Amino acid sequence: MSFESRIMRTVRVRNIQEHGVLANLLNAIAQAGGSVGTISLIWEAHHNVERDIAIYADDETQLEKILAAMAANQGTQILEIRDQVLEMHRLGKIAVRSRFIIDSPSTLRRVYTPGVAEVCMKIAKDPSLARRYTAISHLVAIVTDGTAILGLGDIGPVAGMPVMEGKAMLMETLVGLSGMPILLDTKDSDKIVDTVATIAPTFAAIQLEDISAPRCFDIEANLQKRLDIPVMHDDQHGTAVVVTAALTSICYNVRTNLTKATIGQIGLGAAGLATGKMLMEVTGKPVMGADISEKALERFKEAGGIPATLEEIMAKADIVIGTTGCPGLIKPEMVRKGQIILALSNPNPEISPDDAANAGAACATDGRSVNNILGFPGILRGIIDVQAPYISPEMYQAAAEAIANLTPSGEIIPDPLDKKVHRAVAAAVAKKAIEQGLARSEYVPYVD
Amino acid sequence: MSFESRIMRTVRVRNIQEHGVLANLLNAIAQAGGSVGTISLIWEAHHNVERDIAIYADDETQLEKILAAMAANQGTQILEIRDQVLEMHRLGKIAVRSRFIIDSPSTLRRVYTPGVAEVCMKIAKDPSLARRYTAISHLVAIVTDGTAILGLGDIGPVAGMPVMEGKAMLMETLVGLSGMPILLDTKDSDKIVDTVATIAPTFAAIQLEDISAPRCFDIEANLQKRLDIPVMHDDQHGTAVVVTAALTSICYNVRTNLTKATIGQIGLGAAGLATGKMLMEVTGKPVMGADISEKALERFKEAGGIPATLEEIMAKADIVIGTTGCPGLIKPEMVRKGQIILALSNPNPEISPDDAANAGAACATDGRSVNNILGFPGILRGIIDVQAPYISPEMYQAAAEAIANLTPSGEIIPDPLDKKVHRAVAAAVAKKAIEQGLARSEYVPYVD
Repeated sequence: MSFESRIMRTVRVRNIQEHGVLANLLNAIAQAGGSVGTISLIWEAHHNVERDIAIYADDETQLEKILAAMAANQGTQILEIRDQVLEMHRLGKIAVRSRFIIDSPSTLRRVYTPGVAEVCMKIAKDPSLARRYTAISHLVAIVTDGTAILGLGDIGPVAGMPVMEGKAMLMETLVGLSGMPILLDTKDSDKIVDTVATIAPTFAAIQLEDISAPRCFDIEANLQKRLDIPVMHDDQHGTAVVVTAALTSICYNVRTNLTKATIGQIGLGAAGLATGKMLMEVTGKPVMGADISEKALERFKEAGGIPATLEEIMAKADIVIGTTGCPGLIKPEMVRKGQIILALSNPNPEISPDDAANAGAACATDGRSVNNILGFPGILRGIIDVQAPYISPEMYQAAAEAIANLTPSGEIIPDPLDKKVHRAVAAAVAKKAIEQGLARSEYVPYVD
Repeated sequence: MSFESRIMRTVRVRNIQEHGVLANLLNAIAQAGGSVGTISLIWEAHHNVERDIAIYADDETQLEKILAAMAANQGTQILEIRDQVLEMHRLGKIAVRSRFIIDSPSTLRRVYTPGVAEVCMKIAKDPSLARRYTAISHLVAIVTDGTAILGLGDIGPVAGMPVMEGKAMLMETLVGLSGMPILLDTKDSDKIVDTVATIAPTFAAIQLEDISAPRCFDIEANLQKRLDIPVMHDDQHGTAVVVTAALTSICYNVRTNLTKATIGQIGLGAAGLATGKMLMEVTGKPVMGADISEKALERFKEAGGIPATLEEIMAKADIVIGTTGCPGLIKPEMVRKGQIILALSNPNPEISPDDAANAGAACATDGRSVNNILGFPGILRGIIDVQAPYISPEMYQAAAEAIANLTPSGEIIPDPLDKKVHRAVAAAVAKKAIEQGLARSEYVPYVD
């Protein structure tokens, strides 16, 4: 199963003005296995109502079934089926823009020759001024080799571009950074490190994205060794930060002590290993870890973890985190009463939250509720604002705390589109960098 | 001498309301060696007038002299001296922006997970769709190693960033492309080629910028061999195109036949060699060429040119083009009556247009009048719009013709900020690519 299974369409329907037609239509969609998003009223007349209904299907076959069910609904006529996802992707979702317009020859003379030369010479004499007078101050490379795009696997960097552009949109929208996708025509780890290091002067930070494990571990470490700007593999640390924040909130909600709980991490890929490590740092206790790969278990053991089997973890752990990519791996009968279960594989979890709750879990959630978006924007903004050379484990912990602190009571995480949260994450990371003596500039919080 | 010599300041002055105060002030500036740009009226009262006066100086010493002269002017008081160039560069001149805003969770679900996955899979199945559904359709890398920034020389790529950002602003403003600076932490030619080729999947075209000769020749050729997207070294071809356009207009103005004229190219660096080559292609006749480097002469000879000395060219050529970087190289006594002289070294030409005209030149101009900006935006837009794999000599010629055709009668080149000209260049390049069978997509002219 993969992310491919989520297909979105907008269907314009004309319903006759009669009680229950819309309700019956929604019921028909549900019966056919579809879900419904936004429903907009387009036009209302004496006998008819036109609406746009956003529907979600697992695959093309199911989509056909849903559309057939809609067409067959008494009093419903399908007028148009639109693919708004594709419409929004036309010519891409990002652009490089001027921060102000060139409206006259006199502006041109200031931003280009001859005026620009004086700025160049100032920077040549004092390179630190590049952070004041160039876009290097807010440019972040979003680097991928296309080997692990979402749950889709190795589909190549060009096919991954829509995801990279989505990240760039979020960087701008949430924290005002300029994310620039960099698609790599190589899967060789050393060449990736060398290429990114060679273009690094362009950027304030490097975000590695959707690079497959275990390659991602060495690539991140070796690149960070080469550079004095932060390098962050989001699939590792972004996930670890948000999972740690979610666990903090859950433990608060169900009155469990995170630092005393036995924690089991099932799946030790990029996200799983980083999450296991971070939870060991936070709790000061070893975490149990399971994986089908001997090498992954070895790596986890080196990091201080306790290799275990799926069954051992389900039998012993108070908190279970699944990042395996194997839907249905956890059977209801394995669940112990009172367990906290985060089954994070997308789009289909190791066990559905409902099944886990019915089997006695104190709290159960899946990947939809533990959104990565909460991590990388604020972390990068904070680290860039103080020009620290790398992101320390303590800074990641500070980010997780900031997210947990802003989680509404009873919830697991805050609204990922709430800019207040991202500002708080940035401030927490910057503050920690200053405390650790890693800041290389005064901290001036960014403004929208 | 270098571009560094152009310093711009905005001086706010309060003049008493009396006839001749402003005139005297401007005279004082001129006497001190300064030039004046825009003069804006800020505030007028009964006894006083406040104005912002943009002044240009060659260097800091001259600036001090000009400011002292202004302060000493009868009836003038200096209120404030501002550096608007630096102000405009604060935090850089470009940003990566979303093409529409993420205003709701439902938009987020379309531009990011889960909706984005379907677009990724479509592109994985048919990579040509990347030009329809991603920003690759309009992204252009603006690549530099910082070895030949303007007339400033090897000041490094980071110090060159303000120039790269200026190019990006022009790409957006004039033809709607997304120029992305890429600063390279290497001067090794092979490594430059390899690095740029490795990140090339991100872009629709590569613009090489301010890379020193002779390295730039092999870098461009080898990179183009590796890639099936256009690679253009602007310092070579952008200059050649605009010079050819300017010569076409000048010959028309002074009733000279370009194809029958004897042409001499003085200085065979990046711009000079490319210009010489292009003029040989256009006229079908060899061009004379002079340079102090034996290797440069060799290269010119291989391209079909006739090696010569400065004196031979001045004695024989009807048209002389200087791209040497040596101010004052051409003495007035060398000029023959009726010669056309383009002394293009910036900021100080081989001979000033006035001196050349006084010595008998039929037409003389310098680098300020032959603006590179007219070339690269339209050329790149046209080639990208038809997805041709490289830019042929004939396409460059078509671009030059388009510029010449839109030059107002009696002028040398059109207004570089006139978008109509850039659209015409794009259309001419696209049309030629189609004629040559190099277009790989239907031509849909871009719209602003």
